[in-house]
Amino acid sequence: MDALTQYLEGNREQFLEDLKKALRIPSVSTQPAHREDVRRCAQHVADDLKAVGMTRVEVVPTAGHPVVYAEWLGAPGKPTALLYGHYDVQPPEPLELWTTPPFEPTLRDGKLYARGACDDKGQVYMHLSALKAHMKVNGRLPLNLKVVIEGEEEAGSDNLEKFLRERRKQLDADVIVVSDTSMLAADQPALCYGLRGILYTQIEVTGPAHDLHSGEFGGAVTNPANALAVIIAALRDGDGRVTVPGMYDRVRALTPQEREGFRALPFDEKAFIHETGAPVAFGEKGYSTLERIWARPTCDVNGMWSGYIGEGSKTVLPSFAAAKVSMRLVPDQDFAELFPRFEAYVKKLASPGVTVVVKNLHGAPPFLTEPDHPMLQAAVRALARSWQKPPALIREGGSIPVMATFQETHGLPCILMGFGLVDDNVHAPNEKFSLTSFHGGTRSIAYLYEELAKGA
Amino acid sequence: MDALTQYLEGNREQFLEDLKKALRIPSVSTQPAHREDVRRCAQHVADDLKAVGMTRVEVVPTAGHPVVYAEWLGAPGKPTALLYGHYDVQPPEPLELWTTPPFEPTLRDGKLYARGACDDKGQVYMHLSALKAHMKVNGRLPLNLKVVIEGEEEAGSDNLEKFLRERRKQLDADVIVVSDTSMLAADQPALCYGLRGILYTQIEVTGPAHDLHSGEFGGAVTNPANALAVIIAALRDGDGRVTVPGMYDRVRALTPQEREGFRALPFDEKAFIHETGAPVAFGEKGYSTLERIWARPTCDVNGMWSGYIGEGSKTVLPSFAAAKVSMRLVPDQDFAELFPRFEAYVKKLASPGVTVVVKNLHGAPPFLTEPDHPMLQAAVRALARSWQKPPALIREGGSIPVMATFQETHGLPCILMGFGLVDDNVHAPNEKFSLTSFHGGTRSIAYLYEELAKGA
Repeated sequence: MDALTQYLEGNREQFLEDLKKALRIPSVSTQPAHREDVRRCAQHVADDLKAVGMTRVEVVPTAGHPVVYAEWLGAPGKPTALLYGHYDVQPPEPLELWTTPPFEPTLRDGKLYARGACDDKGQVYMHLSALKAHMKVNGRLPLNLKVVIEGEEEAGSDNLEKFLRERRKQLDADVIVVSDTSMLAADQPALCYGLRGILYTQIEVTGPAHDLHSGEFGGAVTNPANALAVIIAALRDGDGRVTVPGMYDRVRALTPQEREGFRALPFDEKAFIHETGAPVAFGEKGYSTLERIWARPTCDVNGMWSGYIGEGSKTVLPSFAAAKVSMRLVPDQDFAELFPRFEAYVKKLASPGVTVVVKNLHGAPPFLTEPDHPMLQAAVRALARSWQKPPALIREGGSIPVMATFQETHGLPCILMGFGLVDDNVHAPNEKFSLTSFHGGTRSIAYLYEELAKGA
Repeated sequence: MDALTQYLEGNREQFLEDLKKALRIPSVSTQPAHREDVRRCAQHVADDLKAVGMTRVEVVPTAGHPVVYAEWLGAPGKPTALLYGHYDVQPPEPLELWTTPPFEPTLRDGKLYARGACDDKGQVYMHLSALKAHMKVNGRLPLNLKVVIEGEEEAGSDNLEKFLRERRKQLDADVIVVSDTSMLAADQPALCYGLRGILYTQIEVTGPAHDLHSGEFGGAVTNPANALAVIIAALRDGDGRVTVPGMYDRVRALTPQEREGFRALPFDEKAFIHETGAPVAFGEKGYSTLERIWARPTCDVNGMWSGYIGEGSKTVLPSFAAAKVSMRLVPDQDFAELFPRFEAYVKKLASPGVTVVVKNLHGAPPFLTEPDHPMLQAAVRALARSWQKPPALIREGGSIPVMATFQETHGLPCILMGFGLVDDNVHAPNEKFSLTSFHGGTRSIAYLYEELAKGA
């Protein structure tokens, strides 16, 4: 066993104690009553970063909660990693559902229970532990490191983009490292190399200038709710493909290796669909459920409304109908390019007798780091060393908003290496972090910094 | 000028005074504070019926407001008419928009302003005036008459059906007369011989058991809102025809005479559509706007809802979507027969991965009295005598709920002979009744009773 690994094994209890101290601070970013706790937590994290040997440690005020910044640039010629995490947590309510209090970290059955145990203080403190190990064993880090730990992730990261833009140059790096995702199973590490983006629109259909009596006028004018249904129905064909012209032009096809890799994953489709309560899986023809979620675009209604929606019957021919319709986008789709095409197509689908407005409510780019990118391969090696098995290379179907921001401000390859488990109760009562995740993750991260240093 | 007409001309002011007295009673049936006023109004109408010489006058208690009943059966061998009207009125609010107080009837520019002036006290008192004229001039009525004046029309006629059923035999007649509709213009009387019925349903589509994250699950399971749109879009074809199998099986085709009659009406389609605010008229191919409203079935969404309908964007894949969908029905369609066909068709249109429930919320039969029915022809003659021009034979696109009830309890031919005008502000502030309508209507009704007596 090398000295680094030995140090990591010998200091498990200390690492856990360090984490527990941070968990005792109720840094709930969305609750004004905790504003001072959030500030105190930022200072606590900054102090811990200083204690492990990071330099230029700052608690940077923003219009909201502060960002903690630190760096260590003592490895000239070596690559520079930019670590992102967050020290704020979700509200703990409902409190009565917690077995032990959310801000009194408690060990039970090899799991540490507390709000933030996994999301994201637990994962941030794995990095601090790994850094401490390098510093103690070697007196230095194997590469250059910049650290950004924000305090508003659970509140929408409203002020992060400004911070990243203002410090664009200072934060320049070769790779971004984020530990805020999950493993595939307790003994199966995973690396997420792709996320979907989104184009979120609102379709508004207006027919008559005011609601009409459906008896006195029904049949003579176009009903905007019927017209909206015609539009939405036409957005996909019978095979589950989106019919917007050009929708698939930039969709990057899965490689045979990716499809083979997904197929080999221990994914229980039956259990997955059962958990949704839907009677059967259904989606784009020719793709598996994982492929549909991870690598194919969608077109889903998120909300829809028109006319009378109370109890019983009201004979109204509504003046207005609207739907929120969003498309999950995959690499290399571009939400800005797609919106005008979507808008033109929806307007073309409009029945005579209605006017249609399409609003662009929100867009986020998809994200992909090539699975064979040297930085990602460094992470593959680190995880394989730590867990004695290669990590699963996965994607996720959602967006991580902060990744979209990093994409826009820095556009770097990114390692999403997280150690959560599906039953960690993130955002719910009894949040926990398993000690095997915590210690295995710390070891993985210590190796990651070594491997990244080699791999550049 | 015959004696009857002379009497009518000579007593205009008295008729108006009689009406005004009734208008001063705020018989607002939906407002509990006016319960005693409603009862007082019933008694007032009963007293007036007694005063004109009706017999067996009753104020019949119900679970809600009373029904006023009266009869005169002194013409053996002659036909029996059943007159229906209502003495309750809509709430007058908002009061500040009335030029003169709603329950102080005021004459301005040849119009009588008051809540109920047209709907329906004004039209009921035309009948009382006509009866009075017959009694004064001839000492009798030319036919047998039964009178039902209810007090809950503006509150849904909840207790009328029970009354009609319980007195099924007592109320037997040859024809029903209702004055609660409108003229085509101030100098153009109209007879409505057809109404549409309705089948009002609710379609409920369930996909997943709970709302899902549209990123983590989008593409893998059927979205119930998209599935609902597919169903609704398929309910009509591109020509505006309803696609429910068997929908048109019982639809009575318009006769060439009817189509010719509708075409000849002074109907300003442009103005009609302009009033709705819809950019263009649009409906079933091969039919005019009047034909579409009066004589063709529809399939309209009255309400629709699913998922997130607040401000901004929420990335939810909803568990549930629903729509209220109603079909206006025309003679001889049968809502009870149609519902199971509709239900089966909607379920057939359901995408894989959702379950669909179709609820029958409400049904009402369409109504038609043949235009050449002797009773209707009697009304045509009466109106022609009174206005010196033949009445327009029209239909209406809505239902009159009480007509549906009469259809079910008695199934008689029916004369809908009303004298409202489109600008009478029925159900709105500054309700009015024009004196030309009131006096012309009274004369028409007096002649109607004569003509009905002849026509049988």
